Amino acid sequence: MTTMNRRQSIAAAGGLAVASLAGGAATAQTPDRKMGYAIVGLGYYAVNVIMPQFKNCQHSKLVAVVSGDPEKAKRLAAEYGLPKRGIYSYDNYDSIKNNPDVDIVYVCLPNSMHAEYTIRAAKAGKHVMCEKPMAISSAECEAMIAACKQAGKKLMIGYRSHFEATNLEARRLANSGAIGKRRYFRSEHGFVQRDPSKWRLKKALSGGGSMMDIGIYALQAARYMTGEEPIALYAHEQTDKNDPRFTEVEDMIEFELEFPSGVIASCMSMYSANQNHYILMGDQGRIELEPATRYTGNRMWTGKDGRETEVTSPPGPGSTQFAGQLDHLVQCIRENREPIVGGEEGLRDMRLIEAIYRSAREQKRITL
Amino acid sequence: MTTMNRRQSIAAAGGLAVASLAGGAATAQTPDRKMGYAIVGLGYYAVNVIMPQFKNCQHSKLVAVVSGDPEKAKRLAAEYGLPKRGIYSYDNYDSIKNNPDVDIVYVCLPNSMHAEYTIRAAKAGKHVMCEKPMAISSAECEAMIAACKQAGKKLMIGYRSHFEATNLEARRLANSGAIGKRRYFRSEHGFVQRDPSKWRLKKALSGGGSMMDIGIYALQAARYMTGEEPIALYAHEQTDKNDPRFTEVEDMIEFELEFPSGVIASCMSMYSANQNHYILMGDQGRIELEPATRYTGNRMWTGKDGRETEVTSPPGPGSTQFAGQLDHLVQCIRENREPIVGGEEGLRDMRLIEAIYRSAREQKRITL
Repeated sequence: MTTMNRRQSIAAAGGLAVASLAGGAATAQTPDRKMGYAIVGLGYYAVNVIMPQFKNCQHSKLVAVVSGDPEKAKRLAAEYGLPKRGIYSYDNYDSIKNNPDVDIVYVCLPNSMHAEYTIRAAKAGKHVMCEKPMAISSAECEAMIAACKQAGKKLMIGYRSHFEATNLEARRLANSGAIGKRRYFRSEHGFVQRDPSKWRLKKALSGGGSMMDIGIYALQAARYMTGEEPIALYAHEQTDKNDPRFTEVEDMIEFELEFPSGVIASCMSMYSANQNHYILMGDQGRIELEPATRYTGNRMWTGKDGRETEVTSPPGPGSTQFAGQLDHLVQCIRENREPIVGGEEGLRDMRLIEAIYRSAREQKRITL
Repeated sequence: MTTMNRRQSIAAAGGLAVASLAGGAATAQTPDRKMGYAIVGLGYYAVNVIMPQFKNCQHSKLVAVVSGDPEKAKRLAAEYGLPKRGIYSYDNYDSIKNNPDVDIVYVCLPNSMHAEYTIRAAKAGKHVMCEKPMAISSAECEAMIAACKQAGKKLMIGYRSHFEATNLEARRLANSGAIGKRRYFRSEHGFVQRDPSKWRLKKALSGGGSMMDIGIYALQAARYMTGEEPIALYAHEQTDKNDPRFTEVEDMIEFELEFPSGVIASCMSMYSANQNHYILMGDQGRIELEPATRYTGNRMWTGKDGRETEVTSPPGPGSTQFAGQLDHLVQCIRENREPIVGGEEGLRDMRLIEAIYRSAREQKRITL
């Protein structure tokens, strides 16, 4: 018997696992074969944020791109060394089903296209990572969940904060009782949206304004930092409709969530000021993050009465939050378990966002 | 003609002024004669915060105390070198009218006694400084204003933040346009109220819970940092009625104010967590204070996207905010002008607090 190092040993065990599933589902994978992602939609986030992250992944690799811009697709395919069969247009998108390189489709399109491209991916026999917000209505979310379920494919929403070290440590601290009984959460998420031509400002593409884009981080954090689901809410929108940026979607929306334990969460979403912050206050202390949910550089403080101690978080599950997110779906596929931020999680947020918009429109508190 | 130094010169001019008013009102004062304050109610704030401040005043001195505890009154009178005629009980309080040492009565009693002791002070011919909240209802505030007006006496509310250097500089910066168009204000003011026996937790004495005590600082700051009066509001209360501290008054109350310009202010008042903070966000930057409205040690930062620059404020009008506050009323009396935080200011807050309580009770938005 030869001596194997750890890597070889794992590879051998993987080989045995595949062997034991001989003739089984096409999704059976050797544990150390990286799964292939096709990125759909080559906008800023896809190109500048997600695509450069595959080099940080343990289990994921980029194998295809789907774009309406052939030149851009070709250029990026070359940059990332993708084979020619990894370049798709929206016209031949469905033929992705014939590409065994592609295990997962990552939908990075404008919000209103999430449902369609997720459902088509599921029908093509691919697992789906879909950017947040999951869609532009809860009905769409339900259809996406149903389509993936019917196809026997995983669906995960791109909630990167669930893989971000600072946020994970903040959650752990909150759950540990370190700040006593949780009483009050607040968050503001916003930035100055300068360009009136952005698709995010076109309601048909975005489904809504700052809430759909940046406010959803505050909503998410309110839920994961309290560990509860809201039972009532109130929202107020403030938008200068004469501002050319905001003729179709909201600028600022303030929303307050009531949780069963008595915790209140008060959140602001906005396109007219820069802020990225949350604080969870307990009767024995607080946890505060600023910036809270940025791509990098998030910071955390604890204290009884202010930012007394800066906390360094242990590493997250991936070398970056994006790598952790991308690899998580692969691991869920391999182990046939649900992603921690699956379609149901996206649907929950979408129902809350719909209630937030309704409350703001009707100017009244809504019981959920 | 002898040479006079500046002090002598002012004294001489003062003497002339008095001479020219010979036989006039008893309120005519030489400019550098310090005016005398009688402190009514010798609780923590009076004894530990206000009384030690007269040594920092240019125009104010402590001349009398009014207390239901004769020993405490005697002890404090001795400590501050007050004459025997400067010691009053609640029984002989009205005889303060015969004490020419007393120009101003400073009402530091529980909230429910503010109206009665202010009105009696005015009837005794004294000017009044009344602690915040001005009273426990707007009707009481109106009666206090009327009584002082009828007596021809000044009425000022103890809004110390209007004399606090950091807050004054924050207002100046906000008004200067340094952060662009104001969009969003938020503040949390709270502390852990531990002692269930405190008068502040007895509704008959306090009129309300954290809102009446600490939340009013957030309300004040929302108004002075925006420079606007709200046109609508929504409030939500969260109180654990099983907590022995909160059987009578509210613990947490979240309130959101809508201002005519479109600015939103979101504020939290609470007795179950420590926080003292506000932030004003504009489309070109922000001004943030933490702690914001403490007795000492308030700090301010400006930035485009975080706490980028700590700002050192120029000195306020007094050597401390308390000295500035105490001396301001004296100067207003001397110059026969209205205090910058007179009875009308207290009444405005009280009407808003009533609306906040009503909104929380009815769980709906209120148009003001």
